[in-house]
Amino acid sequence: MKIYDISKEISETMIVYKNRDNKKIVREIVANHSDNHFHESKITLDMHCGTHIDAPLHMVENGHTIEQLPLENYMGTCKVFDLTAVESFIRQKDIVHLPINEKDIVLFKTRNSYSKVYDFNFVYIEEDAATYLVNKKIRTVGIDAMSVERDKPGHPTHKILLGNGVAVIEDLQLAEVNAGEYELIALPLKIKNSEASPIRAILIEK
Amino acid sequence: MKIYDISKEISETMIVYKNRDNKKIVREIVANHSDNHFHESKITLDMHCGTHIDAPLHMVENGHTIEQLPLENYMGTCKVFDLTAVESFIRQKDIVHLPINEKDIVLFKTRNSYSKVYDFNFVYIEEDAATYLVNKKIRTVGIDAMSVERDKPGHPTHKILLGNGVAVIEDLQLAEVNAGEYELIALPLKIKNSEASPIRAILIEK
Repeated sequence: MKIYDISKEISETMIVYKNRDNKKIVREIVANHSDNHFHESKITLDMHCGTHIDAPLHMVENGHTIEQLPLENYMGTCKVFDLTAVESFIRQKDIVHLPINEKDIVLFKTRNSYSKVYDFNFVYIEEDAATYLVNKKIRTVGIDAMSVERDKPGHPTHKILLGNGVAVIEDLQLAEVNAGEYELIALPLKIKNSEASPIRAILIEK
Repeated sequence: MKIYDISKEISETMIVYKNRDNKKIVREIVANHSDNHFHESKITLDMHCGTHIDAPLHMVENGHTIEQLPLENYMGTCKVFDLTAVESFIRQKDIVHLPINEKDIVLFKTRNSYSKVYDFNFVYIEEDAATYLVNKKIRTVGIDAMSVERDKPGHPTHKILLGNGVAVIEDLQLAEVNAGEYELIALPLKIKNSEASPIRAILIEK
C-alpha cells in the first residue's frame, strides 16, 4: 500500500496567508522532560492554516459548521487532475474536457504545489469553473492553494461552492502526486460550531 | 458503508482531564458575518484534549514526535474488544484469552464510554497488561479513557507502551460500537515536534 501524504506541516514557521503575523500558529510547552519528566504542549491554530476544510459557515451566513458535515465528502475514491499548465486561475475551459462526474471528489494539482514561499499570485478557481463544478454536482473539490480564490470582493467562488453543497479542501500538497485515481482520507476534527478544521490528508494508491 | 464516529466533540464545555481549567480549550472568533461578511476563528488546544494520539516524546525523553510516526499505525483493520465488565483496570488476565496477534491494532471498549462526567476512577491499562501487549508485538492500542493509566507515579504504562513501539490512542468514544473487526481511520495532524495530536477517529464496518 503506497501512501502519499498530501498535508502541509504545521509549525511556527509554516507559510501562512499573506505572511500575516496574526495567522501564525503559537505553541506553548506546558511541561517538559527536564522539569516534569514528561512533555505536554498546547497549540493556538488559525482554522485556515495549512491543509484544511472550509465548512459553509466560513462564507455563508448561518451555514453548516464542520461537525455537521457528512464524512463521506472527505474520504473515498478521488480523482487528481494535473492543471500545472494553468498560469493564473482555473477557468471552465481548463476543466470542461476532464472526466468529472456527479458525486466525484476532485483534486486540482497546480503549480502552487511547487511554491517554496508565499505566492501572492497563487492559482485559484474562477467563478465560471466553480459554477461548472456545482452544475456537475460533484461532492468535493480540493486544491493546493491556501484559498479557492484570491482577493475577490464578496468571495464569489467560496459562495458558489459552499453555498451549493460542494465541499472544499484547501492548501493540499500535491507535488509528489501524479494525475490519477486514489483513495482520499481527509477527515475534519469534530470541532463544535467551527467554520473550518485543520486536517491530515493522504492519498492511497489504488 | 456504515461509519461509526468514535471521536469526542471538541468544544469549550467538553470534559477535560480532572476537570482542570488549564486543560479547557479556548476559541476566538476572529471575524463574523455581521461585521465582516465571513466567519473565521482560532482555537487553543491542549494536545491531550478529547480523542488524541500520544507520540513517544510525551513520556520518553528524546522520543519520536507525532509527525515522525508511521501512518500505518493509525489506519487499517482493527479489533474492538468488549471489556465493559472490567471494574477498575485492565489486567493481563482480562485480555490473555483474546485473539490478539502481532501487528494488530486493538481498541478496548470499557465502561468509560458511558460516563457523562469526568470519572476520577476511569478504567485504565495496568502495567502487566501493557507488557503483555508489547510482548504480543501489536502495533497500536486504543482506549476510551483520557489516559492509558491513572495517577501512577512515573507513568509506567505509558512508558512500557510508547517506549517499546506500541502506538497509543486515547479518549475514544466506543458506546455505539460492538466488539468485532472494523477498518480504523485515526490519523494525527502533521504537527512538527509535537508530543501528541487531536484526531478524528472513525470505524468503518467491514
